[in-house]
Amino acid sequence: MIKVGIVGGTGYTGVELLRLLANHPNVEVAVITSRSEEGIAVADMYPNLRGHHDLCFTFPDVDQLAECAVVFFATPHGVAMKMAPDLVKRGVRVIDLGADFRIKDLDLWSRWYGMEHTEPEMAELAVYGLPEVNRDAIRSAELIACPGCYPTATQLAYIPLLEQGLVDHRRLIADCKSGVSGAGRGAKVGSLLCEASESLSAYGASGHRHLPEIKQGLTEAAGRPVGLTFVPHLTPMIRGIHATCYSVLKDPIDQGLQQLFERRYADEPFVDVMPMGSHPQTRSVKGANMCRISLHQPQGEDVVVVLSVIDNLVKGAAGQAVQNMNIMLGLEETAGLNLVGLMP
Amino acid sequence: MIKVGIVGGTGYTGVELLRLLANHPNVEVAVITSRSEEGIAVADMYPNLRGHHDLCFTFPDVDQLAECAVVFFATPHGVAMKMAPDLVKRGVRVIDLGADFRIKDLDLWSRWYGMEHTEPEMAELAVYGLPEVNRDAIRSAELIACPGCYPTATQLAYIPLLEQGLVDHRRLIADCKSGVSGAGRGAKVGSLLCEASESLSAYGASGHRHLPEIKQGLTEAAGRPVGLTFVPHLTPMIRGIHATCYSVLKDPIDQGLQQLFERRYADEPFVDVMPMGSHPQTRSVKGANMCRISLHQPQGEDVVVVLSVIDNLVKGAAGQAVQNMNIMLGLEETAGLNLVGLMP
Amino acid sequence: MIKVGIVGGTGYTGVELLRLLANHPNVEVAVITSRSEEGIAVADMYPNLRGHHDLCFTFPDVDQLAECAVVFFATPHGVAMKMAPDLVKRGVRVIDLGADFRIKDLDLWSRWYGMEHTEPEMAELAVYGLPEVNRDAIRSAELIACPGCYPTATQLAYIPLLEQGLVDHRRLIADCKSGVSGAGRGAKVGSLLCEASESLSAYGASGHRHLPEIKQGLTEAAGRPVGLTFVPHLTPMIRGIHATCYSVLKDPIDQGLQQLFERRYADEPFVDVMPMGSHPQTRSVKGANMCRISLHQPQGEDVVVVLSVIDNLVKGAAGQAVQNMNIMLGLEETAGLNLVGLMP
Amino acid sequence: MIKVGIVGGTGYTGVELLRLLANHPNVEVAVITSRSEEGIAVADMYPNLRGHHDLCFTFPDVDQLAECAVVFFATPHGVAMKMAPDLVKRGVRVIDLGADFRIKDLDLWSRWYGMEHTEPEMAELAVYGLPEVNRDAIRSAELIACPGCYPTATQLAYIPLLEQGLVDHRRLIADCKSGVSGAGRGAKVGSLLCEASESLSAYGASGHRHLPEIKQGLTEAAGRPVGLTFVPHLTPMIRGIHATCYSVLKDPIDQGLQQLFERRYADEPFVDVMPMGSHPQTRSVKGANMCRISLHQPQGEDVVVVLSVIDNLVKGAAGQAVQNMNIMLGLEETAGLNLVGLMP
Repeated sequence: MIKVGIVGGTGYTGVELLRLLANHPNVEVAVITSRSEEGIAVADMYPNLRGHHDLCFTFPDVDQLAECAVVFFATPHGVAMKMAPDLVKRGVRVIDLGADFRIKDLDLWSRWYGMEHTEPEMAELAVYGLPEVNRDAIRSAELIACPGCYPTATQLAYIPLLEQGLVDHRRLIADCKSGVSGAGRGAKVGSLLCEASESLSAYGASGHRHLPEIKQGLTEAAGRPVGLTFVPHLTPMIRGIHATCYSVLKDPIDQGLQQLFERRYADEPFVDVMPMGSHPQTRSVKGANMCRISLHQPQGEDVVVVLSVIDNLVKGAAGQAVQNMNIMLGLEETAGLNLVGLMP
Repeated sequence: MIKVGIVGGTGYTGVELLRLLANHPNVEVAVITSRSEEGIAVADMYPNLRGHHDLCFTFPDVDQLAECAVVFFATPHGVAMKMAPDLVKRGVRVIDLGADFRIKDLDLWSRWYGMEHTEPEMAELAVYGLPEVNRDAIRSAELIACPGCYPTATQLAYIPLLEQGLVDHRRLIADCKSGVSGAGRGAKVGSLLCEASESLSAYGASGHRHLPEIKQGLTEAAGRPVGLTFVPHLTPMIRGIHATCYSVLKDPIDQGLQQLFERRYADEPFVDVMPMGSHPQTRSVKGANMCRISLHQPQGEDVVVVLSVIDNLVKGAAGQAVQNMNIMLGLEETAGLNLVGLMP
Repeated sequence: MIKVGIVGGTGYTGVELLRLLANHPNVEVAVITSRSEEGIAVADMYPNLRGHHDLCFTFPDVDQLAECAVVFFATPHGVAMKMAPDLVKRGVRVIDLGADFRIKDLDLWSRWYGMEHTEPEMAELAVYGLPEVNRDAIRSAELIACPGCYPTATQLAYIPLLEQGLVDHRRLIADCKSGVSGAGRGAKVGSLLCEASESLSAYGASGHRHLPEIKQGLTEAAGRPVGLTFVPHLTPMIRGIHATCYSVLKDPIDQGLQQLFERRYADEPFVDVMPMGSHPQTRSVKGANMCRISLHQPQGEDVVVVLSVIDNLVKGAAGQAVQNMNIMLGLEETAGLNLVGLMP
Repeated sequence: MIKVGIVGGTGYTGVELLRLLANHPNVEVAVITSRSEEGIAVADMYPNLRGHHDLCFTFPDVDQLAECAVVFFATPHGVAMKMAPDLVKRGVRVIDLGADFRIKDLDLWSRWYGMEHTEPEMAELAVYGLPEVNRDAIRSAELIACPGCYPTATQLAYIPLLEQGLVDHRRLIADCKSGVSGAGRGAKVGSLLCEASESLSAYGASGHRHLPEIKQGLTEAAGRPVGLTFVPHLTPMIRGIHATCYSVLKDPIDQGLQQLFERRYADEPFVDVMPMGSHPQTRSVKGANMCRISLHQPQGEDVVVVLSVIDNLVKGAAGQAVQNMNIMLGLEETAGLNLVGLMP
């Protein structure tokens, strides 16, 4: 079994990595670190792991982590930036589930994340870990910047349209809805059941950190700068992202949209293009590493609506990280990820 | 006390009317009809009404209903159309919470509702019961077509912009999210807790019955036919609608949007314009007859985003019906409607 | 209007007091204090109150509070103990929604609440504010200890049986289920939507602070010390307590249980005895000051099961506090409390 | 791969069997029947199965089913009774997830299920499929009666105590809480999100079909007839059962309870005895074939409280059925069942 490590394993992406890796046929988790929970068994913190993992959280130690083939960072931004360079130098392949290496324009990064970026060389080196776009680069990458949850759902929805230049790239509107787990396991009033259930609201409508990341990806797909309005909403459920992506067709007569999407994702194990006019439910991917997409062209007019759903903790975080790891290690890409969504 | 009647009181808008009217200072519910529940006490069906209403459901009888000053129809479409003419002839003022008289173009109505419209004269007579637009006409109306829930939230969001001609009226996108009570109390698989909770999806993305109603209202506000994409979503909560309304400003430099909205709704008791950049939560209006609105202009660019929330059963149905009744009867417009949202 | 004050108004019982008092015909909230939110408008913190209250939170000041006829404490234990004596001395009537004065045995209190009780005289003076038991004493009380939420639901279920000596008082089992708002508005991981929704568990099964309070009340009703097993459970909803109360009948043949309960609560405006064999739902009292009770005698054997539901924030806290206030001030006991449960 | 069939695959236990068997290393689903959905692809009905199963529902045909080594019945009571005899005669091993063969006293069965039992010989033959009790008999069984969900959670909680005669067997109280999926996928008003969420109530408190099944199992464990009060509650979540099981210790001084439970279940792969004083959460077993148990002895008195949680659709239905199948076929008992609970 190949040894892997997890830095910052107490949050939701950390426990989700442990769940996915518990049944992975080729790798085992050898180290999991947490400054705050040092010495605690992971199964005491997350009883669903009882019988699946014997590990305890340890204080992060680079020497110990360096014995792993791959190290995942499931940490707030700023942490991977500090520790990743050392590990990469020692030949460890690093997969950052955080935001440190997602944005290539480091001034832009600093503006949105409110701190200086101290590792421009690493940022240069980092490969954006969206396999549907960068599979080849991922194979040999030393450092992966795993995409954010909203960016995953939104890019997979828009990329086929933008790559082919079929829509007005200056007028994209992504109205996104997320479950509360996207806000993490931090004890915030806004994430309390009594605050977040039986309610729905937008947040960050005037600007959200995933905006520059999405724009970067879409700009690359379009071959020129896109104009994007991105409004995220907090919705009363644990897991799930639903992106409703609007754009204006240059030629509304074109009948090939469905085939375009099916062709674009034909070989993708984790993108499922549903029949035209379908309405994917987030629960169909709950716990699964899958993005389900469907297309609508309301009243046959010139607006195309792409609906895209993922589980923010799986295809939007831990599952995509494992997918990247599989690619990097030359394993079956679907190893450990052949999960069926939990429904009902 | 003025006597009022309710036809079709077993659904969610019916029980909500009973809740609101239980404490109304000027009216009392004298008759409530239901073919299926004839003879059953309303408090046996809805135990929250124990001690508030002694009524039993009766078989609908026009003579009995004709003794009421106002009769509410909380019925599926097609029912009010049959019974309303008789009542109106006898001088009863009718408030239809259903869809029979909302759309003035009856061919369009027939196409969306799948039946012939048999009462063109009544449809002509009917006043669209959105007090923020039609208060004067409501005062003397014999027949009110109470707006749908999505149309209420969406029109109140767009009307100030369209009345002033500030946005491109051909490119409106209303991304709407509703709680499950919008689907009614019918026993449908899709509305089961196990199907609708912990999930989110769009529905009717290619066409929904509220689309022509919204377009009619916005067209009237704009003074010319609007182009609207309307995508509703089913969200895992009981009550609440959140409309996220996108449009493109003709002049993005204009700084007067907030003032425009505040002025437009200054005298409206049931529209609350929050400070620019706010994010209204649906729970802030849970159980209350209120529409809360806020504005965003992301990154100062030319897209304006209006966020609008209501309780679909109150300002989106029963509360608005009572508001209409108050206006029609010359009562205090807020009588019985001074409700505080239930939070948490 | 009679002036009242609220100390510690930022929690859920505080905002619920504001909701209930917003429409009270006889009193107005003149002061609301919060150390942490000083200067903030209550409507900025709780947008459901926009248009209903203009108040700002102020730093607690005894002189200012002393101008009120009644002051509510919606504070953690230990706070009312410090401030109440001063207010009582100045003739203010104090209603403590917290635990400081609920338990007469102050050693017992200290053991469960982990601090010394510094006000034995006030504790002696305090009247336990369960109107169904202590209405007369409440009328003239200077200081009210408002019952806890579990104690309210459980005592109202057991009292008729114990007063009449019909059941084995040594073998009472109260299995209670609470919504998450019972844990307050504090930012605790266990109260996050992602932790508490889609799950259910017991907590404090080996001992919970409401145990001595319930035992005290039941012992008083029985006229001798009772034996009680009390297991609370956290359930995935915002509001509601369901107490399932088991006891063993001394004479299982007795047919008068239903009549006993109906008689006991015949004049109580806020206790509703449903027909034998009913199953009260917590939602039937959501937002309402009501306790609904029903009886079962499974298979006609000797175990009687009493089901009792309340809204923990209303009859279990703020509503009961207002009921106490009404009694103390000689107002109509139901003033401001004629609320219909929000259903659905 | 060994071929298995499923009769009545459209309900929640049916889709759960498909989820579990999708990744089973030794068997494949060859047939799935549904009268109402004949011809429909299972993945069209349950999109979470897209890419995992290509099957369509077929009309139930005994010849086709007879080609399977094992046939599961996920049907309402009365169905398996009719079809099972034929299959058993042809050498097919039948696992009934329904209630037809759970109760040995057929008069009792008839009384609770409201129909005559037409297959007394099959009922005689049937093995009650609780592996923790009947593993040896299961190995060679031709027909398995898979336990109900409440009975599984409750029996596993009480059995160690009753087998050792440690508690008063005449005074057992099982207060059980279930998620809504226990009510099935039928379109019933009571299971609607708007009826069942944000609420909690008991149901069937005077008598529920699982009562005689639980009593039968506990009586067998105790070696004499037990007295049991069983009150089920409907709780606002999709999956999960929490059984809170009260009994009175004959000797409260005894310190060996924890060890007793640990020893009793030491070799059980799907029963997890947590440390004394723990509070198992239903979410820790969400989607997993596991029963988590913990013990409390409140205030060191003579009442012992056993908390027991399962996922009603897994260890309470489909997972237990697969566990039985593994045992019957001589496969690894945990094959296909090594699932980690989905948390959060």
